[in-house]
Amino acid sequence: MSDLRIAVLGVGIMGADHVARLATRISGARVTVVNDFLTEKAEAVAAGVPGCRAVGDPLDAIADPDIDAVVLATPGPTHDKQLLACLDHGKPVLCEKPLTTDVESSLEIVKREAELGKRLIQVGFMRRFDDEYVQLKALMDAGEFGRPLVLHCVHRNPAVPPSFDSSMVVKDSLVHEVDVTRFLFDEEIASIQIIKPATNPGAPQGIQDPQIAIMRTNSGKHVDVELFVTTGVAYEVRTELVGEKGSAFIGLDVGLIRKGGAGTWGGQITPGFRERFGRAYDTEFQRWVNAVQRGNATGDYTDGPSAWDGYAAAAVCAAGVESLQSGQPVTVDMVDRATIPGA
Amino acid sequence: MSDLRIAVLGVGIMGADHVARLATRISGARVTVVNDFLTEKAEAVAAGVPGCRAVGDPLDAIADPDIDAVVLATPGPTHDKQLLACLDHGKPVLCEKPLTTDVESSLEIVKREAELGKRLIQVGFMRRFDDEYVQLKALMDAGEFGRPLVLHCVHRNPAVPPSFDSSMVVKDSLVHEVDVTRFLFDEEIASIQIIKPATNPGAPQGIQDPQIAIMRTNSGKHVDVELFVTTGVAYEVRTELVGEKGSAFIGLDVGLIRKGGAGTWGGQITPGFRERFGRAYDTEFQRWVNAVQRGNATGDYTDGPSAWDGYAAAAVCAAGVESLQSGQPVTVDMVDRATIPGA
Amino acid sequence: MSDLRIAVLGVGIMGADHVARLATRISGARVTVVNDFLTEKAEAVAAGVPGCRAVGDPLDAIADPDIDAVVLATPGPTHDKQLLACLDHGKPVLCEKPLTTDVESSLEIVKREAELGKRLIQVGFMRRFDDEYVQLKALMDAGEFGRPLVLHCVHRNPAVPPSFDSSMVVKDSLVHEVDVTRFLFDEEIASIQIIKPATNPGAPQGIQDPQIAIMRTNSGKHVDVELFVTTGVAYEVRTELVGEKGSAFIGLDVGLIRKGGAGTWGGQITPGFRERFGRAYDTEFQRWVNAVQRGNATGDYTDGPSAWDGYAAAAVCAAGVESLQSGQPVTVDMVDRATIPGA
Amino acid sequence: MSDLRIAVLGVGIMGADHVARLATRISGARVTVVNDFLTEKAEAVAAGVPGCRAVGDPLDAIADPDIDAVVLATPGPTHDKQLLACLDHGKPVLCEKPLTTDVESSLEIVKREAELGKRLIQVGFMRRFDDEYVQLKALMDAGEFGRPLVLHCVHRNPAVPPSFDSSMVVKDSLVHEVDVTRFLFDEEIASIQIIKPATNPGAPQGIQDPQIAIMRTNSGKHVDVELFVTTGVAYEVRTELVGEKGSAFIGLDVGLIRKGGAGTWGGQITPGFRERFGRAYDTEFQRWVNAVQRGNATGDYTDGPSAWDGYAAAAVCAAGVESLQSGQPVTVDMVDRATIPGA
Repeated sequence: MSDLRIAVLGVGIMGADHVARLATRISGARVTVVNDFLTEKAEAVAAGVPGCRAVGDPLDAIADPDIDAVVLATPGPTHDKQLLACLDHGKPVLCEKPLTTDVESSLEIVKREAELGKRLIQVGFMRRFDDEYVQLKALMDAGEFGRPLVLHCVHRNPAVPPSFDSSMVVKDSLVHEVDVTRFLFDEEIASIQIIKPATNPGAPQGIQDPQIAIMRTNSGKHVDVELFVTTGVAYEVRTELVGEKGSAFIGLDVGLIRKGGAGTWGGQITPGFRERFGRAYDTEFQRWVNAVQRGNATGDYTDGPSAWDGYAAAAVCAAGVESLQSGQPVTVDMVDRATIPGA
Repeated sequence: MSDLRIAVLGVGIMGADHVARLATRISGARVTVVNDFLTEKAEAVAAGVPGCRAVGDPLDAIADPDIDAVVLATPGPTHDKQLLACLDHGKPVLCEKPLTTDVESSLEIVKREAELGKRLIQVGFMRRFDDEYVQLKALMDAGEFGRPLVLHCVHRNPAVPPSFDSSMVVKDSLVHEVDVTRFLFDEEIASIQIIKPATNPGAPQGIQDPQIAIMRTNSGKHVDVELFVTTGVAYEVRTELVGEKGSAFIGLDVGLIRKGGAGTWGGQITPGFRERFGRAYDTEFQRWVNAVQRGNATGDYTDGPSAWDGYAAAAVCAAGVESLQSGQPVTVDMVDRATIPGA
Repeated sequence: MSDLRIAVLGVGIMGADHVARLATRISGARVTVVNDFLTEKAEAVAAGVPGCRAVGDPLDAIADPDIDAVVLATPGPTHDKQLLACLDHGKPVLCEKPLTTDVESSLEIVKREAELGKRLIQVGFMRRFDDEYVQLKALMDAGEFGRPLVLHCVHRNPAVPPSFDSSMVVKDSLVHEVDVTRFLFDEEIASIQIIKPATNPGAPQGIQDPQIAIMRTNSGKHVDVELFVTTGVAYEVRTELVGEKGSAFIGLDVGLIRKGGAGTWGGQITPGFRERFGRAYDTEFQRWVNAVQRGNATGDYTDGPSAWDGYAAAAVCAAGVESLQSGQPVTVDMVDRATIPGA
Repeated sequence: MSDLRIAVLGVGIMGADHVARLATRISGARVTVVNDFLTEKAEAVAAGVPGCRAVGDPLDAIADPDIDAVVLATPGPTHDKQLLACLDHGKPVLCEKPLTTDVESSLEIVKREAELGKRLIQVGFMRRFDDEYVQLKALMDAGEFGRPLVLHCVHRNPAVPPSFDSSMVVKDSLVHEVDVTRFLFDEEIASIQIIKPATNPGAPQGIQDPQIAIMRTNSGKHVDVELFVTTGVAYEVRTELVGEKGSAFIGLDVGLIRKGGAGTWGGQITPGFRERFGRAYDTEFQRWVNAVQRGNATGDYTDGPSAWDGYAAAAVCAAGVESLQSGQPVTVDMVDRATIPGA
């Protein structure tokens, strides 16, 4: 199968990250076009990706017959027009949140896609792909803890940019918990209330921070969210799901912790080497592929343990097997590395 | 840059895993040849990868001018001859441990590569690429905990295959801790002793299990390793590094835990959203690329949150902003999804 | 100083516990009188405590000149009259919550004690004496985390008795978090709201469970409490205090966990042997005192490691010191215990 | 039953701690005599305990017919003579480790007590009374994890006094792990080896630190102990017991952590309020008793929540019950505390 040719529109922090992601870690796709309202930025990004060029108008990129799919990382107010263009040209699009900046235009997009009869739009709520959220949903869906009843969330940022205002806490931060709620509960949210506690003296003037959001789903499930975006500590995203017969935490920096049967708390031990080291293998292979790619220029086609490391391990294990038989300490016999120039 | 064309030799559990890894998660490489001493297995694996074929002789694959690099996942006794062939043909090779099955031939490989003046051989000690080991080494190298003094390791498997024997505990399990020791300490191991405690009654007849390995490095650092391969529990790989002024644990299923300054224990909070959700973005993008690739056949070019999910989030956040102003609960106003066929 | 002579009024589960506490673990006091509206129960409890008798009327016990102080573990509706009697007779009283069952009579008690000019009444909010709450308050009072802003609480019971009703969730469970809030924040609560989510299908008919309490203090601090009394799991009481510059958790079954400076999470390592084993010493001594008390009847005045255990430790350590010098394994030389009858 | 009259011999740090323990936290005993080779120290300690006097000769104290039992916290070399005196006078004695300072005299003590036919000597290995060790032994004895096979221990001190030498690491530190091993395994230790790694540059000149002790029990169980007494961090005492089918940790500052069935790790949730708050009740009662004892001098017979705290809780709960019915926020109605002088 040939690689998808992708246009990434908007190459700010987020979009540039996505370009790097597609260029170096994602199989089956290439970034061939980038665009940004800052032309120079787009050109700089394009220069770093073989076979990629910058274009000046995002709509041209969407219309380009040599583009198979689109990633939207442009400012929210431009999404409306760009999504409609994607629908018009039948281009699959991965759109960073928000879909659009108001409810009416979002609904309009939904209707237009529905009329088209194809699902072309995916929204970038990335938490649905996070291992811990996936595990949390799987745990609840498995039924062991009964029906979910309550969701407690914490969403903390160390700091926000100067332009941040109180409503952005809702639209840019809380929006993730809104989607998490809908994802975990598989139902819509019926009502919402924002409680405004006494504010953090360290928060920028005029920002209501922290905020407490209280949501209720159609079936009456309760959700509360602490939003606190000027903690000075770190990025903390925590979720506790309370079911009829047990509860589980994610986001404590220690994996999923469950409380349940027999009054126990704890987690799962990684069951095997593939689960434990699967990502290490991926990293090892990607770095080896990269090293081989640049090997002709350097004479070094490796980025990891060398033949010497393999020899040293063999020498120690041979001594170990000898000790296994004798029970005595065994001195490891190895040649002096300096006697082999180049090793 | 064009993709590397890779031959994977040996497609048992490990090799087949690597084929899947290269085919679906590694950027910049393609598996174009596979080989196995079980011909049918090689053919079955090849059939699942576009543009890949099976060959009958591993040496043919190594010699093939259309092969840029080799992955060795064949049985250890064949490594010697295959590595020499790679060196002869100047092919970069990622070789699963062991390098070879005895010390002499391992040393011979080291010498041959050194004579060649190119680094072509990388050995598959994957733990060096594991986030926790990397963090542990970085912590020690940073010097905050002084020089490392002692290393405690635990290596437990729930069970082993019937063919396992006592010396394989050393050569197949302990070998990883041998490399971890050399990686973390940057020095060679001077001596080793295997202690044989009373055996687990549940271990297969004739196997010494558990075993305790005691190693000493050239500079006198102490390493102990509990090897216990019939625990019936799970795969547990744990390492504790003790320095002059602090110590740190990995492998407790809760990330790296340090003990040090001011008598505290604990870990690091994930600092930002890119660290916290970087892998979720990777997963999101890979699954989206895969979905778009198969979209023409299904009419669905998505594998994640839909336009409706974007609309729903917009509706809840709009109500949230209204509540932020009024302080009162606000009912969320959404159209009935059923009124939009196809949404 | 002579022991206080204490009357314990009400010897249900709680009161009987307190009798045992005073009789076996508290220095400086003796239970000399017990009372219960179930006369037989009082007599049974009195029979188990040397020098203790049962009386039929709690007011007689309060008036008794041979009683120095009173513990009230009687039903709430009787507290009013009994507390007034304690004030009339100048008897110090430790009163289990509630003070009285309504606001007016509670205020009346406050006024009567204030007129008396002596502080005789202590209310049994025991969490103020719990190590973790004390640590949490100390941490916040120390100022490192800035001013406290938000408090999240969870209060879960596995089950409730059949007579439990929705308002008891507030008056018997939430009352502890009410006091915890006032204790941690040193200010009064200005308003409260109870949110009623969809109920646990497993809760008894007619009970609103879970409930979410939202409180606001005079200075605008936010407190939320999940009350869930039919979880089927265990007793979970959790508190998270969020300050301007850090937060801390208690009740996770792992001690106090803080998040703060430098983006770290974690706890304190027990600093020395007195902190680590102080309670073990208390237990050791109490059990030894009890054993000596009953020794004349049994000939055994010990409840712990014997002289033989001391000998065995000496023998192993002597061999250890020999090995420290030689570096070699040393066989431990001990006599056969069977050769010393009685050892 | 009347209180035991106890003589505490040796009132250095440890002995003075025990005097305070017996005087303020242990029921059924009083310290009536103290002794120390530093006469002034003994007198100072005696002065702080009502009814206690200092004596100049420890043997007089042992012989004193008004002494019922003895606590030995004197230097080890004096234990021999003092223990024999206790046996001669039939006095129960709690003897801090070591029993005596050499193997021969320890054995002699064992024989003399055995001849006497009474158990009078208890040795102060306090870890047997520590909750975590008790839980660990109970877990193993329950059999769920099969027979124990291996024990890993860590014993770390932040620092040692200048007089400390290498053999004291064995006799004063390792001795606790020796007893822990015998306690957990219920069998004797057959051999011991001390491994001497490269030493901590920060350790005092001439001390072998760290040391690794390797022990083997009669049935072949393996025990290893890291002894490291100059870590600069804190007091860390950790024990991991590995059984046939599971393992458990104590001393991680988070309670007992088990790994076992179904590949899970974790702990037990405190099951009920008595387990969770039992110690808080003890503290509450002891502090209340102390406050009442000193109340006549101060007019304040309390040390904890006041009548006002009871009133405030009543006021908030009454508002909570009102909100439970209405679902609306309810303002808490309280009188101004300042209007009640003395409240």
